[in-house]
Amino acid sequence: MSGNTNRQILLVEKPSGKLGPEHFKMIDGAMPEPKDGEALLRVRYISLDAANRAWMHGATYRSAVEANSVMAGGAIAEVVSSKAPGLAPGDIVFGDTGWQEFAAVPAKHLTKMPKLEPMTHLLSVFGIAGLTAYFGLLEVGKPKEGETVVVSAAAGSVGSIVGQIAKIKGCRVIGIAGGADKCRWLTSELGFDAAVDYKDGAVFKALRAAAPKGIDVYFDNVGGDILEACLPQMNNYGRIACCGAISQYDGAPAAHGPRGVPGLIVVKRLVMQGFIVMDYMKDSQRALADLQAWVKSGKLKVQEDIIDGLENTPKALIGLLAGENRGKRMVKLAT
Amino acid sequence: MSGNTNRQILLVEKPSGKLGPEHFKMIDGAMPEPKDGEALLRVRYISLDAANRAWMHGATYRSAVEANSVMAGGAIAEVVSSKAPGLAPGDIVFGDTGWQEFAAVPAKHLTKMPKLEPMTHLLSVFGIAGLTAYFGLLEVGKPKEGETVVVSAAAGSVGSIVGQIAKIKGCRVIGIAGGADKCRWLTSELGFDAAVDYKDGAVFKALRAAAPKGIDVYFDNVGGDILEACLPQMNNYGRIACCGAISQYDGAPAAHGPRGVPGLIVVKRLVMQGFIVMDYMKDSQRALADLQAWVKSGKLKVQEDIIDGLENTPKALIGLLAGENRGKRMVKLAT
Repeated sequence: MSGNTNRQILLVEKPSGKLGPEHFKMIDGAMPEPKDGEALLRVRYISLDAANRAWMHGATYRSAVEANSVMAGGAIAEVVSSKAPGLAPGDIVFGDTGWQEFAAVPAKHLTKMPKLEPMTHLLSVFGIAGLTAYFGLLEVGKPKEGETVVVSAAAGSVGSIVGQIAKIKGCRVIGIAGGADKCRWLTSELGFDAAVDYKDGAVFKALRAAAPKGIDVYFDNVGGDILEACLPQMNNYGRIACCGAISQYDGAPAAHGPRGVPGLIVVKRLVMQGFIVMDYMKDSQRALADLQAWVKSGKLKVQEDIIDGLENTPKALIGLLAGENRGKRMVKLAT
Repeated sequence: MSGNTNRQILLVEKPSGKLGPEHFKMIDGAMPEPKDGEALLRVRYISLDAANRAWMHGATYRSAVEANSVMAGGAIAEVVSSKAPGLAPGDIVFGDTGWQEFAAVPAKHLTKMPKLEPMTHLLSVFGIAGLTAYFGLLEVGKPKEGETVVVSAAAGSVGSIVGQIAKIKGCRVIGIAGGADKCRWLTSELGFDAAVDYKDGAVFKALRAAAPKGIDVYFDNVGGDILEACLPQMNNYGRIACCGAISQYDGAPAAHGPRGVPGLIVVKRLVMQGFIVMDYMKDSQRALADLQAWVKSGKLKVQEDIIDGLENTPKALIGLLAGENRGKRMVKLAT
C-alpha cells in the first residue's frame, strides 16, 4: 500500500511478436473512487494465465485489452469499502481487477468467495484453473475408466489437475510437458503413468510408446504441433477437449492448422470441442465439492507458484508463456 | 451379360497424385462360384462416391484398396443364385461388389433391400447418400429452426439432400458449389436460400454476404480452404459436421490443416465432429420413414446422375472428383 496512490501496470503497446517487458509500464495512479453499485477493492493475488496473452490479439470470449490501459487480469481481492448491497468491508471476491493495487469494480462483475486458508487455493484448485480442469475433462473429454488420457501443458495450472482427476477416474494418464524435471515431477509426485518431454525431440514417437493402445481423450492446452502429433494416435470415437492454444498466443499467428483436420476427424469419428469454463458455472458447487474432497483426502495435490510484488507481474507472465511455471502461477501483492 | 465371363475393372496402380484412366484396366474375369454362405450377384447399379478415392490412400473406416485387385465399390445387385439362408434368386441387395458384372459375396456382408421403383433410389435418397445427409445433419449438426446452415459440395449426392432437409427443418440454407449453373439450380430448383460459387473468387466474402448472422451449422464435405473460410464465421456454440474431405482426396495430401484450429474452436465453443453413417444404422428405419414421406410430399427432390456401362465407371469417378455430377452419380450395368 502506498498512501493515496495506486500503483498500476499499463500495457503500453500491443505486441506483434513475442511479449516482452518493454510492452508494460508501471505508474502511480490515483486511488479509485467507487461509484454506486461498486466496491473499492484491495488486490491480494493476481492470477496469471496464458489467456492474458490471447486477450492482446483481439476479442476472444472477452473484449480485447487495449494499449495504454491497465493490463486486465483476474484476481482475488478484499473489499475495502462498498457502495453495493451484498458486499461489505473484509469480504473476499474474485473478479477482473486488472494489474493494480486497488480497483473500483461493479459488484455485478464480482464473485464473492468463501474465506478459506490458504486463500491462494481460490485461484488454483478451487478457482478457474481447477474448474476448467474439472469441467473440460469430465464434461467435454468424458473419460471412461481404463481409457487413455493425454494432457498437454501438463505441469501447468490446469494440466496438472486434469491429469490427477483422470487418475482418480481410473484412466491411464500421459502428460506432455517441457523439460525432464517437470516430466519427473508429473510421474513421481502427481502419479501420472508417463510423461513426454516435448523439448526432447519426437513427440509423436514418444507418445506412441507411452500410449500403445492409442489415445481416447486428449485435453489440448497448446494446439499446433502437439495437437498434430496426437490426432493420428486418437482411437475411434476419441474426444479432444480444446481448452487453449498456448503455442499460438505468443508470437505471430501460425500459418496453418494441424494436418489431419478434418480427414482424421471423419475416419476416426472424433469429437473436437472447445469450451470455456464460464459456460459451466451453474454446476460449480458440485465441482467444488468434488475438488475439496479430493484435496482433503490427498488424492489431488495442489501446486502453486507464487511470485512476490506487483512490479514482477510482467516478468511473471512472460515466464509463464515460456513455460517456466509449475502449477498455478500468481502474484502476491504487499499487504 | 457376357456368357461365362465376368467383366471386371482393376485398379492397376494406386495414384500418388490425381486419379486418371491409366490407373484402371478392364479385363474378362471368370464367372465367380459362390461358396457356402455366399450369394452370386448380378450387379445392377454401381455407386460412385468421393470416398472411393480416399480408400486408395490407405485404411480409412475400411481396409485400403490394393493395386491389381478389382476396384471396390458399393452397388445394388440382384441375387442370381444363393448358398446362403435368407437370400433367394431375384432378391435385391446392397453391398460392396466391386466394379464388375458378377460377384460372389458372403451374405453377412449384404443388406437385403426393399423392392421399390425406381431401384436407383436405393443408392440415392434411400441409400447411403440420403442416410448420411439425414444423420449427419440432424444427429451431428443438430440444427434448430431459424438457424443458418451451410453445406459444401452442395450439388452433390449428400449435400443436395442436406440442404433440403435443413429447409424442411426451418433453417436458412446456403450451399457452396462449383459453377454458376449448379448454384442457380440449388436456389431455383432445390429451394436453398443462397448459393456461393467457390470457383468465382472469394468464398469468405460471399459467405459473409449470404450468412450475415453467421453460421450455426456447417456440414463439411470438403475440408481445406472452404472449411477455413467457414471457421471464423461460425457463431458461438456452432456445430461442424465433418462428413468428408473431398479437397484432400485426389492428389497429394495437403501440407497443413485449416487456420483457426484449435484457436477458434476454443473461443467460439465449437463442436467439430466426424461421423460415418454406418454408426447410425440401428436408426435407419426412422430415417427412411422420414425420407420417404418427404419425397412423397414433394418436399425433398431426388436428383440422380446415371452413367451407362461398366466400362465408363473410371471416367465417371474421375469426373465426380472434378465435381461434374449433380446429385447422386451411379453407373448402370447392361441388364
